[in-house]
Order: sequence, then structure tokens, then C-alpha cells
Amino acid sequence: MQSIKVSSPGTLSNLCCGFDILGMAVEAPFDIIQVSKRNAPGISIKHIDTFGLPEDSAKNIAGVSLMAMIDMLDYKEGFDVVIEKKIKPGSGLGSSAASAAGVVVAANELLGNPLSYKDLIALAMEGEAMASGSRHMDNVAPCILGGTVLIRDSAQMDVVRLNNPDLHISIVHPQIEIKTSYAREILPVDIPLKKAVSQWANVGGLISGICMNDLKLIERSLVDVIIEPVRSKLIPGFNEVKQRALDAGAMGGGISGSGPSMFMFSQDEHTATCVAKEMQMVFERLNVECKSYVTKPSSMGVQVLESK
Amino acid sequence: MQSIKVSSPGTLSNLCCGFDILGMAVEAPFDIIQVSKRNAPGISIKHIDTFGLPEDSAKNIAGVSLMAMIDMLDYKEGFDVVIEKKIKPGSGLGSSAASAAGVVVAANELLGNPLSYKDLIALAMEGEAMASGSRHMDNVAPCILGGTVLIRDSAQMDVVRLNNPDLHISIVHPQIEIKTSYAREILPVDIPLKKAVSQWANVGGLISGICMNDLKLIERSLVDVIIEPVRSKLIPGFNEVKQRALDAGAMGGGISGSGPSMFMFSQDEHTATCVAKEMQMVFERLNVECKSYVTKPSSMGVQVLESK
Repeated sequence: MQSIKVSSPGTLSNLCCGFDILGMAVEAPFDIIQVSKRNAPGISIKHIDTFGLPEDSAKNIAGVSLMAMIDMLDYKEGFDVVIEKKIKPGSGLGSSAASAAGVVVAANELLGNPLSYKDLIALAMEGEAMASGSRHMDNVAPCILGGTVLIRDSAQMDVVRLNNPDLHISIVHPQIEIKTSYAREILPVDIPLKKAVSQWANVGGLISGICMNDLKLIERSLVDVIIEPVRSKLIPGFNEVKQRALDAGAMGGGISGSGPSMFMFSQDEHTATCVAKEMQMVFERLNVECKSYVTKPSSMGVQVLESK
Repeated sequence: MQSIKVSSPGTLSNLCCGFDILGMAVEAPFDIIQVSKRNAPGISIKHIDTFGLPEDSAKNIAGVSLMAMIDMLDYKEGFDVVIEKKIKPGSGLGSSAASAAGVVVAANELLGNPLSYKDLIALAMEGEAMASGSRHMDNVAPCILGGTVLIRDSAQMDVVRLNNPDLHISIVHPQIEIKTSYAREILPVDIPLKKAVSQWANVGGLISGICMNDLKLIERSLVDVIIEPVRSKLIPGFNEVKQRALDAGAMGGGISGSGPSMFMFSQDEHTATCVAKEMQMVFERLNVECKSYVTKPSSMGVQVLESK
């Protein structure tokens, strides 16, 4: 095999109450990444998208992860990488994770799969950490494993892959910028024990709902009493957008990652389509441009599209 | 039916990371409660145990719950209740919940089951609240429903019954007194967000481990970074007892409820027996008398033993 093309999915992280511990791969949007062997050391990165990302491999997320992989394997040759990003950087939909995870899964496949999924997550984290300034794997892990993923212990890389619940997702990405580092800075250092208990009760409800595919239980558990009240202030119209989505039949939802994208779950595709439209209308009335997706959880992570 | 005899199980609550949200019914110890119809209003309570509990029905946990049931149903006659308690009051094993839950389930059965399990939990909570001074249902709900129970929202009485994991339990009850109210007072009002995230990650691991019967995942998730470090100081020798249990092969465990009983999970009965002995030996060396049980999670809550 000389060359391989993969799709690398966007991911929702946090999922309301599951701050820093839950992520879910989605069917759309996704990036396309082609990795080819070259007969010389080094990495070349080429972007065929319009996001103006650096192509210097030391400054490119995919480049950094791939370089870490070359070091880990003591690989003597190199790779040419072509990335067609469709997940906009800074959307809160795991754009950097998709670059980092996509390139290492593709290169691993190209080399006959010498690495475990734990290795791949660790390597993808190298690029992700450069991009976000923190080592959270709630995008990288579901991007690689697919499904809904629980990060039980990030230091020990203890990740638990759960099946996806049978639901539909509306994602709306308002075109505003929220810096991940700022979205983290504004969080409280301490929280009331009482609220924490309520949060972990909802985490318990959400995870048991996912394990048992109990959509009503998931619906009741999509509550975030700690992070959302703080971060939602960074998104103009958040409360109205959410309320309109619920009024249109959504089960619940909130901010994806540190935002600005918002996601809502619905029981069927028709409802999810209406919900996305309602959300988009609120943003448009506030003169905030946005892009929306109606999609589903993806049971697959990075997928091989073709190889030669 | 004139008379009914039920067994009402002890319950472990909290289960390490699941403070105030998780409880599990156990096969032993359990109380025996007999409820008989009388042809006149009122409730008589008789205890055939040695714990010296009040037999005045307005001061007895079972009496208070049964009176609430009579009011709810507008029942014109009364009941004679005979209680043989085996779960020592103040053990942290849900003794008051067993009285409250046992009597209402028995009386409901005697009257042809007019009430839902939610009604029964609410009624049992009346007695439990008098006993503990707070309205937590993490003992009452598993005592009635059996299994492992998640309290997603106690105000809304949203309880989720999970299956039991396939494991064995060592319970050791050191004969010291810890007041529930004091065990609650010493808890911090605020906790670091970082620790809270770690706690809800473990809640997620524990619950997904229970749902998937993944004992290794349960083992890794039996971690409490918030409550145990504070409450364990109330139990002499706690750290050594726990360490000895782990050394003897236990998966993990901690304080049951607000203590003083400690529980440990093991993968097989032989290990659970050794673990209980090791734990007991530490307490005995410290001149703390104790009582121990080697048992299993119970899939049944209050059970009818005989009726006539």
C-alpha cells in the first residue's frame, strides 16, 4: 500500500453534563485526509481547503501528530499529507482532533497497523495539545474509536467505548470566535458540592440511558448545572436558541465542546431538521451567520475510503 | 389476605464515587416484618429484637411510613406490625430504610397493591426522613426495587433501576457510632471543579461497568476523591482496613452510606470471605468489635415470605 484516503469525523464533546469526560463521533461534518508514503524522510502537508491553516509540518496539527508517530516507530522515511478540512477550525466540533486522529490512523493503516488504539490516541493528543493548549481526549478518543466515549481517567488513558443511542442530531455553528483557552478560564475553580451531586446524577442518567438506549432517560439527563450557565453567555442568543429547539421537539442539548457550536438531540430526522431550522432562524435574526448540520451519531471513527 | 410476612434487605448507598445517587440492595442482612390487618383504626408496633427502638407508632420509622400510607389511601382500619430487625440501626446499611420500605410494601400487598412503586418510595421516605433528618432515597429506592439504583433526581423521584453486577460483597460493621447528621456536616460546601470532574468520570465508569457487567471497569471506577477522604477519618483504622482488603484481592470499596460499615467488592465468594476476615482482624486489633457479612447484591427488594 502506497497511499490511503480516510474520512475523519467531527465530534461533540461534553454532551451537557459530561464536561471533560464524554464525546461522540458524528456522521457529519468530517474531514478527508490522504496520506502517502514518500521515499525520503520528512513530512509535507498540503491543505485543499480555505481555512488558511499552516502547512509547515511543525506548526500543523496533523504534522505534529505524524512527527510524533515517526519518532515512536523510529520510521526512517516520510509522508505526504493532503487534507481537505470540512470541519471549520474553532467550531467546537473537534476540528483539530479530526486532523490529528485522521492522519495517525491513516499512517498506521499504511504501515500495516503496528500501533494500538491507545498509541494512536496518545499520538493524536500531541497535535491536539498543541492546538488547544490542554490535554483533553474527549474529541480525539471518539474520533478514533467512533461511538460515544467516556474518558474515565485521562492520565491513565482509560477510555470506555459505549454504543451510540438511536437518535438524530441538529448542529448549528454560529460564525463567531470563542477561544478554548478563554472558555476554560472563565469556569469556576470551586463549585458547590450540591451542584456537583446533581451533575454526577445526570452523568449517571445519561450514561445508563446510553447503555440501555433509553431515549426518555437521556432526555431527562441532558442537564448541565455547572458549565452551561457560564459558557452560554459567550454565545449570543443561547437561551432563545435552546428554548426554540426544545419547543420544536428536541430532547435536549447544549454547547458542543467549548462552543460556539450548539447541538440538540431529537428522536427522529424530521424533528432534527425542524430543530436545526429554528435554531438557525434565531441566529439569523441576531445577524449571526451560521452553518447547520442534521446528522446522527457515528459508530465509526476514522474510516478508510480508499487505498492503493 | 389477613397477614403477610416480608423480608426487607439492607442496602449499600453511595458506592464510593456515587455519593447521594447510588444504592444497592444486598442479600444479607435483612429484616423480617409481619403486617396484619386489624378491624379497628390505628397502628400497633412490636419489636422482637434487642435494639430498644420505640414502639410508639408516631416515633417508630415503620409507624410513621404506615401512617402516611393510611392517610394517602384514606384507609379506615389499621395494622398490627411485628418487626424483627437484623440490620442494626446506625450501621450505615439502610436499617431505617428497611423498616420504612418493608412495612409499606407489605401493607400495599395486603391491600391488593393499590399503590405504585413511586408512591411506596415516597411513603417510605416519610419514615426515613424522620430517622435521618434528610430526604435521601439512596437506601429506600434499592430496598423497594432491588438491584442497583441510580437516583437521577430525588425532587422529581426519578430513579433508574440497573441490573446488579455479578460480584460478591464483604461488609464489616465496626460497633462504633457515627451520627448521619454529623457525617453530613463535616462535608465541604464547595469542592474543586477538577475533583468533581474526576468524580463524575468515575460515576460514569461505575455505571457503564454495571450496565455492561464489566468487573474490571467497575474495579477501576471504585474511587471517591471527595467524600471518603473526609468521612474515613471517622472510622478508626479505615485506611489499613481498606488496604488489607485490597491486598487480599478485593476489587475496591469504601464506606457504606455515612458509615461506620465498610464494604468491599470481590470477584468470587472465596475472596470475599478472606477479605471480610482480614478487615475484621484489623478492627479487632484496634479493639473495635465488629460484625461481618459475606453476601451478594440482591436483585430483589422487599420480598413476600408468607401470607395468609
